[in-house]
Amino acid sequence: MTTVKHLIGGEMIADTGRSADVFNPSTGEAVRKVPLASRATVQKAIDAAKAAFPAWRNTPPAKRAQVLFRFKQLLEANEQRIVQLISEEHGKTIEDAAGELKRGIENVEYATAAPEILKGEYTRNVGPNIDAWSDFQPLGVVAGITPFNFPAMVPLWMYPLAIACGNTFVLKPSERDPSSTLLIAELFEEAGLPKGVLNVVHGDKEAVDALIEAPEVKALSFVGSTPIAEYIYSEGTKRGKRVQALGGAKNHAVLMPDCDLDNAVSALMGAAYGSCGERCMAISVAVCVGDQVADALVEKLVPQVKGLKIGAGTSCGLDMGPLVTGAAQAKVTGYIDSGVAQGAELVVDGRGFKVAGHENGFFVGGTLFDRVTPEMTIYKEEIFGPVLCVVRVNSLEEAMKLINDHEYGNGTCIFTRDGEAARLFCDEIEVGMVGVNVPLPVPVAYHSFGGWKRSLFGDLHAYGPDGVRFYTKRKAITQRWPQRKSHEAAQFAFPSNS
Amino acid sequence: MTTVKHLIGGEMIADTGRSADVFNPSTGEAVRKVPLASRATVQKAIDAAKAAFPAWRNTPPAKRAQVLFRFKQLLEANEQRIVQLISEEHGKTIEDAAGELKRGIENVEYATAAPEILKGEYTRNVGPNIDAWSDFQPLGVVAGITPFNFPAMVPLWMYPLAIACGNTFVLKPSERDPSSTLLIAELFEEAGLPKGVLNVVHGDKEAVDALIEAPEVKALSFVGSTPIAEYIYSEGTKRGKRVQALGGAKNHAVLMPDCDLDNAVSALMGAAYGSCGERCMAISVAVCVGDQVADALVEKLVPQVKGLKIGAGTSCGLDMGPLVTGAAQAKVTGYIDSGVAQGAELVVDGRGFKVAGHENGFFVGGTLFDRVTPEMTIYKEEIFGPVLCVVRVNSLEEAMKLINDHEYGNGTCIFTRDGEAARLFCDEIEVGMVGVNVPLPVPVAYHSFGGWKRSLFGDLHAYGPDGVRFYTKRKAITQRWPQRKSHEAAQFAFPSNS
Amino acid sequence: MTTVKHLIGGEMIADTGRSADVFNPSTGEAVRKVPLASRATVQKAIDAAKAAFPAWRNTPPAKRAQVLFRFKQLLEANEQRIVQLISEEHGKTIEDAAGELKRGIENVEYATAAPEILKGEYTRNVGPNIDAWSDFQPLGVVAGITPFNFPAMVPLWMYPLAIACGNTFVLKPSERDPSSTLLIAELFEEAGLPKGVLNVVHGDKEAVDALIEAPEVKALSFVGSTPIAEYIYSEGTKRGKRVQALGGAKNHAVLMPDCDLDNAVSALMGAAYGSCGERCMAISVAVCVGDQVADALVEKLVPQVKGLKIGAGTSCGLDMGPLVTGAAQAKVTGYIDSGVAQGAELVVDGRGFKVAGHENGFFVGGTLFDRVTPEMTIYKEEIFGPVLCVVRVNSLEEAMKLINDHEYGNGTCIFTRDGEAARLFCDEIEVGMVGVNVPLPVPVAYHSFGGWKRSLFGDLHAYGPDGVRFYTKRKAITQRWPQRKSHEAAQFAFPSNS
Amino acid sequence: MTTVKHLIGGEMIADTGRSADVFNPSTGEAVRKVPLASRATVQKAIDAAKAAFPAWRNTPPAKRAQVLFRFKQLLEANEQRIVQLISEEHGKTIEDAAGELKRGIENVEYATAAPEILKGEYTRNVGPNIDAWSDFQPLGVVAGITPFNFPAMVPLWMYPLAIACGNTFVLKPSERDPSSTLLIAELFEEAGLPKGVLNVVHGDKEAVDALIEAPEVKALSFVGSTPIAEYIYSEGTKRGKRVQALGGAKNHAVLMPDCDLDNAVSALMGAAYGSCGERCMAISVAVCVGDQVADALVEKLVPQVKGLKIGAGTSCGLDMGPLVTGAAQAKVTGYIDSGVAQGAELVVDGRGFKVAGHENGFFVGGTLFDRVTPEMTIYKEEIFGPVLCVVRVNSLEEAMKLINDHEYGNGTCIFTRDGEAARLFCDEIEVGMVGVNVPLPVPVAYHSFGGWKRSLFGDLHAYGPDGVRFYTKRKAITQRWPQRKSHEAAQFAFPSNS
Repeated sequence: MTTVKHLIGGEMIADTGRSADVFNPSTGEAVRKVPLASRATVQKAIDAAKAAFPAWRNTPPAKRAQVLFRFKQLLEANEQRIVQLISEEHGKTIEDAAGELKRGIENVEYATAAPEILKGEYTRNVGPNIDAWSDFQPLGVVAGITPFNFPAMVPLWMYPLAIACGNTFVLKPSERDPSSTLLIAELFEEAGLPKGVLNVVHGDKEAVDALIEAPEVKALSFVGSTPIAEYIYSEGTKRGKRVQALGGAKNHAVLMPDCDLDNAVSALMGAAYGSCGERCMAISVAVCVGDQVADALVEKLVPQVKGLKIGAGTSCGLDMGPLVTGAAQAKVTGYIDSGVAQGAELVVDGRGFKVAGHENGFFVGGTLFDRVTPEMTIYKEEIFGPVLCVVRVNSLEEAMKLINDHEYGNGTCIFTRDGEAARLFCDEIEVGMVGVNVPLPVPVAYHSFGGWKRSLFGDLHAYGPDGVRFYTKRKAITQRWPQRKSHEAAQFAFPSNS
Repeated sequence: MTTVKHLIGGEMIADTGRSADVFNPSTGEAVRKVPLASRATVQKAIDAAKAAFPAWRNTPPAKRAQVLFRFKQLLEANEQRIVQLISEEHGKTIEDAAGELKRGIENVEYATAAPEILKGEYTRNVGPNIDAWSDFQPLGVVAGITPFNFPAMVPLWMYPLAIACGNTFVLKPSERDPSSTLLIAELFEEAGLPKGVLNVVHGDKEAVDALIEAPEVKALSFVGSTPIAEYIYSEGTKRGKRVQALGGAKNHAVLMPDCDLDNAVSALMGAAYGSCGERCMAISVAVCVGDQVADALVEKLVPQVKGLKIGAGTSCGLDMGPLVTGAAQAKVTGYIDSGVAQGAELVVDGRGFKVAGHENGFFVGGTLFDRVTPEMTIYKEEIFGPVLCVVRVNSLEEAMKLINDHEYGNGTCIFTRDGEAARLFCDEIEVGMVGVNVPLPVPVAYHSFGGWKRSLFGDLHAYGPDGVRFYTKRKAITQRWPQRKSHEAAQFAFPSNS
Repeated sequence: MTTVKHLIGGEMIADTGRSADVFNPSTGEAVRKVPLASRATVQKAIDAAKAAFPAWRNTPPAKRAQVLFRFKQLLEANEQRIVQLISEEHGKTIEDAAGELKRGIENVEYATAAPEILKGEYTRNVGPNIDAWSDFQPLGVVAGITPFNFPAMVPLWMYPLAIACGNTFVLKPSERDPSSTLLIAELFEEAGLPKGVLNVVHGDKEAVDALIEAPEVKALSFVGSTPIAEYIYSEGTKRGKRVQALGGAKNHAVLMPDCDLDNAVSALMGAAYGSCGERCMAISVAVCVGDQVADALVEKLVPQVKGLKIGAGTSCGLDMGPLVTGAAQAKVTGYIDSGVAQGAELVVDGRGFKVAGHENGFFVGGTLFDRVTPEMTIYKEEIFGPVLCVVRVNSLEEAMKLINDHEYGNGTCIFTRDGEAARLFCDEIEVGMVGVNVPLPVPVAYHSFGGWKRSLFGDLHAYGPDGVRFYTKRKAITQRWPQRKSHEAAQFAFPSNS
Repeated sequence: MTTVKHLIGGEMIADTGRSADVFNPSTGEAVRKVPLASRATVQKAIDAAKAAFPAWRNTPPAKRAQVLFRFKQLLEANEQRIVQLISEEHGKTIEDAAGELKRGIENVEYATAAPEILKGEYTRNVGPNIDAWSDFQPLGVVAGITPFNFPAMVPLWMYPLAIACGNTFVLKPSERDPSSTLLIAELFEEAGLPKGVLNVVHGDKEAVDALIEAPEVKALSFVGSTPIAEYIYSEGTKRGKRVQALGGAKNHAVLMPDCDLDNAVSALMGAAYGSCGERCMAISVAVCVGDQVADALVEKLVPQVKGLKIGAGTSCGLDMGPLVTGAAQAKVTGYIDSGVAQGAELVVDGRGFKVAGHENGFFVGGTLFDRVTPEMTIYKEEIFGPVLCVVRVNSLEEAMKLINDHEYGNGTCIFTRDGEAARLFCDEIEVGMVGVNVPLPVPVAYHSFGGWKRSLFGDLHAYGPDGVRFYTKRKAITQRWPQRKSHEAAQFAFPSNS
C-alpha cells in the first residue's frame, strides 16, 4: 500500500512518522496510507514558503497570472485522473467529482485576473500637489486547512487566489482523501510555479496547531465544522493572525404555494442527496408554506428518493455514492434513529442500505422525514448525510422566522414565481447566500462565498473580491514633492554661460 | 462640578453610580465628573441600539445620508464650542483641536456618499438566465471604544460610517475628555438622527467588557494602546464578533542626504511635538542617512525645540500644550530619564518645564535625543510625549531594516527628492501608512487608515472603503426564474374566445 | 417688465441686443424679457470659463466639494423661491416643481462625492519595478444646453458634476423659463464658487451654434428633441468635441394580466399626465396584454382622467397645469385631431379645456385614446402633452416587439407580479431605462440616465458614473525609476571619511 | 501567387473582385494578392455578424471567456507562424513581431476576465423597497478598421474584448499585411468561437465606407492617421454610431539634466528606431533641457544610430527592417530632404541606405537631426520613419509648453531622477499616455490606451476598462414589487380548512 507524500519546497517528501489509513468508502477498504505531519515537518513547509516569498512577491501580477493560465490548462487536461482519485477516496460519483473540479477551475480562472483585481485606488491632489494611493500587498506565508467533502474545490478556493496575490502557501488538506488534492498541487508545480510557493502537508490536529501557532503564518483560511472553525478563529486571532473560518450549515429551502413544483422537486433531489448530503450547501430542510404544497411535495419526492441510483462512486450513471467513513455512516444512522424517536414521520428510510458487491461500503440510502419540528435534533444539527426533513408552516413570514432563528446561516433558497416574495426573502433572511429558484446558491467564482451567523467566523468571505481583500493588506501612500520656486525652474537647465 | 451624562435612546441620562474626575491638564484641576457605566447601563444602550436597528436598516441609504449632510453643517456651525471643550479637557491647542475636528468632519463627508459606497456588484447571466448580485447589509448593533488623544476625530472615524451603512451604534469614548465627544453626538441627534441609532456611554473596563461580552454587539472598533487592542481583538473574536483594534506606534522619518532639509525640519517639528506627541501618527524617530544630514538636522532642530511656544491649550498662538494627565507626565519624564541612563545624548531636555500661571499643569517641554540606538527603551517603546529621537544610519537599506524590524508598523515617511528612493521605500517598508515628504501620512477620509504588524489587529482598516466593508456583511444572491415554454407565453394573454 | 441677465465671470450682465418674451403659461401673458445672446456675448462667457479653468482644475476635489456642500444647503434654503419661479414660467404645479428641484439636488449630492468618484486605478509592478496608474483629468471648458421642461433639474444633472470634476462651464438654458435656472446658478456663486467657473448665457440658435463652433468648448451636454440632439451630436463631433445629446422618447408601459391594476392605474395617471406630459420619461403608451386588462384599465382610467385637477401651476393641490406655450398647445391639439382622423378611439377629449379666470392660459385637458395602432401618428411621434394611448396586444412577446421596433428607447416599464416576466422584459427590451412596477424609472443620481436608439446620441449617459467619465479624460501614466546598482546604495550616505 | 481570403460566417471566402498586391518590403516584391471587398461582400460579413448576435449575446460571459482562454493557448502555440507572417508582410524584425503579438495576447487575457469586468452596480433601497441596478449590454454588430503597422496587436486590442462583451464583429484589417491578421482570426475560430461572431473582410475605402454607412454596425473602432480618424469619427457619429478613432502622433521625450543618460539613450534608440519608427507611440522628438544634455545625447547617439543592424525583417538579430512600402520610403526621404532644406542639422543621414542582397527593399537608414525647431515640417508632422529630431530648450517649463502646443497628444515621456519634475510633468502635460523613464508608455492591457487632442476622437480610450464601456451600453433598471398588506401574507398559504 503506497503512502502519500508531502509537497515541500517543490519536492515530494516521504514521511516516516505517524500515519493513517485512507479508505475507499465504496468498498470500506484502506487503499493508501497518509502521513500525519509532525510540527517539525509543518515547520519545514512554512520555512519553504517563507523562503519563496520575497521573489514571488516581487513577480509582477501579470507574470504570476501566466502560471495560473497554464494551471487551468493542466487541470482540464488531467480531469479524468483527478476525478477518479476524488471518487475513489471520497466516494462521490464521477459526475459529481467532475462538477466539483469545474467549480475549482473557475476559481483558478478568477485568479488569472490578478492584474485587474489587485488594482489600488489613486487620487491626484488630496491636497495641493499631494497625491495618495492604495496598494494591496501580499501578507507573506498564509495557510489553508480544508475538509474531506471537496478535496479539489475547496483548496482551489484558497491557494490560487492567495498565490495570485503574491503570497506563498501551506495547505493542509483533509487526511481522508488527500490524493486528488496532492495531484492538483503537483500540476500547479508543473505549470511553472516556483518551488516553495505552494506546499502541501498532510496531518491532523498536530499539524493544524503547528500552523495556528507559527508566527510566520499571517493568515488562515479554514473550511470544516463549526466547533473547529470557532477554535481556529479564536486561537488564530488570539495570535494576531487574520482568520476566515467557515463552519457548518443547515440550509432551508422554502416552497411557496405558487412554485413550479416539478422544478422544485428536481432541484431538491440534487441539493439534498447529491454527494450523499456531504456538502455545506446541501439543502437538508424543505419548508413548505401550507399543507397542500407539503403533501404534494412529499408525494412527488417519495418515489424519487426510493429510486435513487446508489453505488460505488467510481461507477458511472449514479446519483449517489457512500458516505466518507464508517464513523460518518454510524453518525447519520444515529440521527435517523433520533428523528424517529423524537416523533418525526420517517417517510423513506435509508438505514441498512446495501449495495451488491460492495457490502462493506459506507452506504446509507436516501432518507426523507416529514412533519419535522424545530426542537428535534435532526432539525437543529447538521446531519451531513442523505436526509431531507420536511417542515410545514403557514406563511412565508413563519418560514423566514424559522430560518432566522437557526444557529447557522450559510445558504437558503426560495421556490416561487412571485417577485415580491423573492425580494422580501432576499432582503430580510439572515443567511449569507440566497437562491431564488436556485437550490444550491454557491456564488460563482467572481462573487464571494460566505455564510452568516455561526456558519462563518471572520469579516471577509471566501474567494472572489473578498478573497482578494483577505489575502492582501492595504498600504496607503501619501506623497508630495517639495516644490521649487519659480526661479528654481532655471536650475533644470545647465548654466548657459559656463 | 457638573457630571457628564450618557446618551441612550435619544435621552441624556444621568448616572448615579461610580464616577471619575475629568481634569483640565493645563491647570491640573478637575473640571467635571464623568460617570463610569455599570454593565446594566451599557446594556440599556445596547438595547436602545437594538430597538432602533430594524427601522434604520430599512431607511434608504440616500435618506440616511440626509442626516449626515445636516450633521456636517451643525459640526461646522458649532466648531468653536467643540474645539474649546477638546482643548479644555485634552490640553491640545485650539488650532490643533480645530484640525482634529476638520479631519473628523471629512469622515462625515465620506459617509454622506453612502448611496455610492454601498453599491453591490451585479452580473446578468452567471449561467443561462441566472443572475447574481451582492448586497452589503448592515451588521446590527456595533460598538466603538475610543482614546483620549482625539476625542472628536476618532469617534467620527467610526460611527458616521457605521450608521450610514445602516447599523446602530454604542460609543464608549475616553473617560478623560468626554465632553466634546458627547456634544458632537448631541449635534447628530439634532441633525435628525432617530433615537437610539447612536448611543454614548462613559466608562472604564467594566463598560468595555460589557460591550465585548454582549452577544447583540456584532462588531467592535477600537483605537488605543497595543495591549488593550490585543485584548479586545482576542476577547471579541473569541465571541465570534468582528473586531478592528488599532494599537500603538513608533513612527520613523527617514532623512536622505538629498532632502530639502528646511522643509523636513518644519515637518518634523509639527509631527514630533504637535499635540505634545500624543498622536499615534506622531513622528518619534528621525533616522538620518549619514552623519552629515544628522548633524545638520540636530543643529537646525535645537533652537526650534527650545523655542516651542508652550502653554494652556485654550490660549491662542501656541505650538504645544500639556500632557493629558499627571500620570502621563510622570511616564514621559521617566522615559527621558531612561534615555539618559542608557546613553542617549540628551540635546534638549524638557523635564521640569513650567508654565507661569499654570504651575500645576501637566507640562513637559520639547525634548530631543541624538545618537539613540535600537536597543534603548526610548527607541523600542511608544513614549507618547514630546520626545524626538535621532538615530544615525549609513544607508537607506539600513534605515529600512530598522523600521521593518520594529514591533510597530503604523506610519512612516521619507524625506528625499529622489524618485527611486521614494519608490523603493514605499514598496518594501513594512508599515501601513507611508509618506513621501509628508510627515503625518494620515490617509484622507476616502482612503483608509491602518497600521501593520502590532499596530492593528484585524483584516480591515478604519474608515474609507475598508470601513464600509467592516461595517457591512456581504449577501450573495443567485436568481433564476423557471422559464415558461414557448407555448406558455400565451398564458400571459387572456383566452381570446372566453 | 424686467429683463433677465446673463451670468458671466461672476457678474450679472445686462444685454441690450435681441430678446424674447417669457410667458406665464397659466395666464398666457409675458412676464419678463430674456436676452438672446450674440456670438460675442457667448464668447465672453467662454473666455470667462477658460480664464477660470487653471485655478479650478488645480483645486483639490475635496475642496471643490465644499462649495457643492454649501450649494446643497442654499438650494434647500431657497426652495420656495425657486419652485415659485419654475411654476410661474413653466406652468407645472408647485408640488411637481418641488419634486424636480429635489431630484436636481440629489445630483448636487452625488457631486459632493467628487473625491470618491474621481479615483483612478493604481497598479504596482505592471512590470518589474514599473508602476502604472490612471488619472481622470477635467476637459477644460464644457457647455450644457438644456430644455424648458426641467429648468432646475436638467441643468443640475450637468454642471455640478462637471464642475466637481474640475471643469468650468457655460450653460445655455431654455429661453422659455430661464429665471429659476439663473437663480440656482446665483446660489452656486453665493456658495463660494470662484468667478467664471459657472457662466449662464440665454439665447437661441445663434448661441447654440456659437457653443458648437468654439474650439475652447471641449464637450457638449444636450437635452431636448431628437432632431436638435442629432444636429448637435453631428456638428459637435465633426469639430472633434465629445457630445452627449439626449433626445425624444415614446415610453411604453406594459400591463400584464397579473398586475396589481389599482397600483398600475395610479402609477399611470402620474406618469402620463404629470407635468402635462412634458417629460421625456412620461408614459404615453399603455400596452395591455389581453383585452381583459385593457378593458379594465380604460374603465378605471376614464373617471380619473376626467377628474384631473387642472389649473394655474402656482396654485396648490393641483394635478396638472398648462402647456408651456401657445404653440405647444396647438401642436398637442393637432395630434389629438390626427388620432381621431386616423381611427383611434378618443375616450376622453382634452381639447378646448378652459380654466376659469385663466382663459388665456395654454391648457389642454387630460386626453385618453384607446385602440391606438402602431401606424398612427399619435403612436409614432412624441406628443409631449397630456395624452395617453392604449394599445392592445396578445402577449408579452408582442408587447416587447412593439417597443423594440419603435424609433425611441428612452424609458419603459412593466406592471406584473411575475418574476420571470419582469426578468425577460428587463433583459431583452431595447430601452435604456427600465422600470418594474415603477412607471418613471429615472435612475437615481448615483446611477446614470440615458436612453437607447434615437433617444441618446453618444457613448456615455448623463450624470452618475457615466457623467464622471464624460466630464473627464483618462491619462495613463507608466513609471519606472532607474535603479541604482547595489554599490550605489552607498551613495545615499555621505562619504564616511569626509 | 495566392490570394488571401475573407472570413465570413465561419467560412473562408474567395473573392474574385478587385484586388491589390501584398509586398514583402524587405525584397520589394509582391508575395500575395489581397481582395478588396465590394459593398456587397462587406454586407455579407455584417449579415453574418448580425445573425450570430442573438445567441452570442445570450451566452453567459463566463462561457464566452472559455473560448478566449483557448484562443490564448492557440496564439501561444502558433507564435512562430504568426510572427513569420507579420515580418514577411510588414518588414519588422522577428523579435519586434513577437513583442507585438505578446502585447496582443495580453488583451486576450484581459478579455478572459469578462465575468469580472462586466459587473454592473446594484443598490438595494434606492427608495423604500425599490432596488436599482445597471447592466452593461452588448451593442450588437461592431466593426474595427486597423492599420498596417501592428497587424496582430491592434486588431487584438479590439475584437477579443468586443466579443467578450457579447458583441459580434467585422474586422477590416490593413490590406498591406493581412495574412497574420487572418491567421489569428482563424485560430479564434479553432478555439471554438461560433460562426459569424468574428468576420474579417479585406478592402479599401469602399469597404470602410460600407462599414460606416451600414445601420447594423453600432460602433466603430479605428486606428490609423488623423485625417482618416477624423473622417471616420465625423461620418460615423453623423449616422448615430459610437466611434473611437485613434490618429497620428508626435511623441516627445524630455531629457532632464539629472537623467541617467545611458539609460535614456538605450531607451530612445528602441523607441525612435524600433519598427523603423512606424509606431504611433514611437519617440520622434528628443527635447533636451540645456545644451549640455543635448550635446552629450547627440554624442552618444551618433555611433549607435550609425551602428543600427538593418536588414530583412525575417532574419534574426536585427534592430530594424525596411519601411512598409516604396511610397512610405519616398515620403520619409522627402521629410529628410525638407529638414535639411529648412535648416535642421542632419547628424546621421539614412537616405540611400542599401541592404546587400535586398537592393529593392524599402529601406531607409537611421536618421538623426539636431537643432530642430518648432516651425520645421519635420517637427510639425508625423514622419512615421526612422528619424529622430533633437530639440533644445532651456527649462522643463519650456519643454512642456512645446509639447502642449503640438497638435497631437498621444504619448510622451520624461527622463529624470527627480520626483517633483516627474510629478509636474505627469500632472500638467496635455498628453494621454505619459512615461516616467519609460520611453513607450503603452498602457498594459488592464489599463486603457488613448491619446489626447488630435490623436484620438471619441470619449473612451481603447481596450482595458474604457474598452469595456465602449463595447457595451448601460441599461438602468429600477424595480419595486407591489407589497401585499400584512393580512395578505396569509395568501401565501393555502387555506387550511378548504
